[in-house]
Amino acid sequence: MRAITLLDGELNYDAHYPHADAAGRVEVHVLKAGICETDLQLTQGYMSFNGVLGHEFVGIAQSGRFAGRRVVGEINCACGHCSFCQRGVPRHCENRTVIGILNHDGAFADSLFVPEENLHPVPDYISTEHAVFTEPVAAACRILEQADINRDHHVVILGDGRLGNLCAQVISTTKADVLVVGKHDWKMQQLNAIGIQTTMLEDFQPAGAADFVVDCTGSPTGFPLSLQTVRPCGTVILKTTVAAEQPLHLAPVVINEVQVMGSRCGPFTPALQMIADKIVRVESLITAEYPLDQAIQAFRHAEQPDTLKVLLHVSDSV
Amino acid sequence: MRAITLLDGELNYDAHYPHADAAGRVEVHVLKAGICETDLQLTQGYMSFNGVLGHEFVGIAQSGRFAGRRVVGEINCACGHCSFCQRGVPRHCENRTVIGILNHDGAFADSLFVPEENLHPVPDYISTEHAVFTEPVAAACRILEQADINRDHHVVILGDGRLGNLCAQVISTTKADVLVVGKHDWKMQQLNAIGIQTTMLEDFQPAGAADFVVDCTGSPTGFPLSLQTVRPCGTVILKTTVAAEQPLHLAPVVINEVQVMGSRCGPFTPALQMIADKIVRVESLITAEYPLDQAIQAFRHAEQPDTLKVLLHVSDSV
Repeated sequence: MRAITLLDGELNYDAHYPHADAAGRVEVHVLKAGICETDLQLTQGYMSFNGVLGHEFVGIAQSGRFAGRRVVGEINCACGHCSFCQRGVPRHCENRTVIGILNHDGAFADSLFVPEENLHPVPDYISTEHAVFTEPVAAACRILEQADINRDHHVVILGDGRLGNLCAQVISTTKADVLVVGKHDWKMQQLNAIGIQTTMLEDFQPAGAADFVVDCTGSPTGFPLSLQTVRPCGTVILKTTVAAEQPLHLAPVVINEVQVMGSRCGPFTPALQMIADKIVRVESLITAEYPLDQAIQAFRHAEQPDTLKVLLHVSDSV
Repeated sequence: MRAITLLDGELNYDAHYPHADAAGRVEVHVLKAGICETDLQLTQGYMSFNGVLGHEFVGIAQSGRFAGRRVVGEINCACGHCSFCQRGVPRHCENRTVIGILNHDGAFADSLFVPEENLHPVPDYISTEHAVFTEPVAAACRILEQADINRDHHVVILGDGRLGNLCAQVISTTKADVLVVGKHDWKMQQLNAIGIQTTMLEDFQPAGAADFVVDCTGSPTGFPLSLQTVRPCGTVILKTTVAAEQPLHLAPVVINEVQVMGSRCGPFTPALQMIADKIVRVESLITAEYPLDQAIQAFRHAEQPDTLKVLLHVSDSV
């Protein structure tokens, strides 16, 4: 089958990648997939991943209770036996594979294999283009599971990229006062068009007054700016990983008793619902779509600062 | 009056330091004071403090409702008007002074001036030596205000110094399973003697399984080791400030969804009670006591790794 692989840090298009063994998992024929910041970081050596990339996808399940239906899939594949699985947090299973990220071939291919319990059917009234966003919208929804944000709170989101945009939309559902700080005029205008306040980084004066700061910058400058922006006893939510070590000053965390909270994958059910209800608007996030065999170009495009989401078209719905 | 001052990074004994203006505060004649890790950091340039050092003290109030009584004093002096004061968190007052740390002459002197609302009388049955520990015990008690620790939790405390010891004792009151990781055999033995488990750093295998990790190392190595020690979705409590920037890798915070919580000053009332009830044992922490005019030597002593608490004797109770 066709697949986009990362081997020893090199991105390849392979027209004859060997079809994997199902091993009790459901084969999913991929329709569309999305390129994520994590994919770009993986190509830079993050997680030392080797294999087929891709973890944001919509496909057709080939077997099991969703056979023949469009599905999206949660990316952490749990063992079901370890202490975290038994405690009900399978996303942190100590034996997990992670689709397209850790010991699990991903979705930038004609097909992939997913445990049935990870699959969610896509309602007919959600288009495939929109459903591709389920995984990143779920990641934004994770914040609402971790932090008790409400209409009395002032929330600053650093970063106007794909994830910053989705976090702003999801957090706005709490009626909190949300401000996105970014670098790109047109990305700001898109946010303004759906009622979200923005300010350009160059005009932003961090005042140490925000109840919550969400760092979606993917940049080493994000965390220090977060600490300048958050109020004493406030919370900084780290949404993006920075692969490299960076020089940091933790004294402000202690002095101001800040909480720093890592935030990763989230729940698919509310994410699908928000997309279905158009509470989260994803259509304007799509910058471009490439066929699978032009994925290398698609990656180059996704790396540009003037893009939001770049999709891969793998096959048409049947 | 006599005072130990820090001026442009230089520690001095001044026999004729000018007596400050009370300015609505209560004069406290100092009996004893304790040298803290923060004092040592201040001499290294932390906070760029200039003035009289010292924030752990017992003295005799000279006026107000505690006139003539022994008192201890909370160190954050709040304005009473700002948003944090009005929200009930005066320790984070944006206009605060901090005794011996920020724009407020401290307790390594014959007297200091403290707002009356910061003072707590010391019950007669607590000795002055023991009451000096109220401020650091309160700092340990702060953890119990911030984190819901109970008997089902495994807590690892990194650092066997003054603060690590007190945090271990205070957290043990929750019946949690507490382990202190340290470097000094005799400090460990002291902890073992009061029923607290210990392990030498060289024998410690961080297993990513602790529910809570408290970093009391005061060292740049403490935070990375904390991240190796805490379980996914666990909490790292930062109790000591590291003045310098340090190279850090925050990706594990995101991947394992760790909460990192800064923790500073705490409540005096439960601290005094724990000392009174001998739930927290402080006597074995006293390594040495120096008269005020030998404070420079006392600082040199406190800097040695083989010390716990070094006290300054300022005057005798009258």
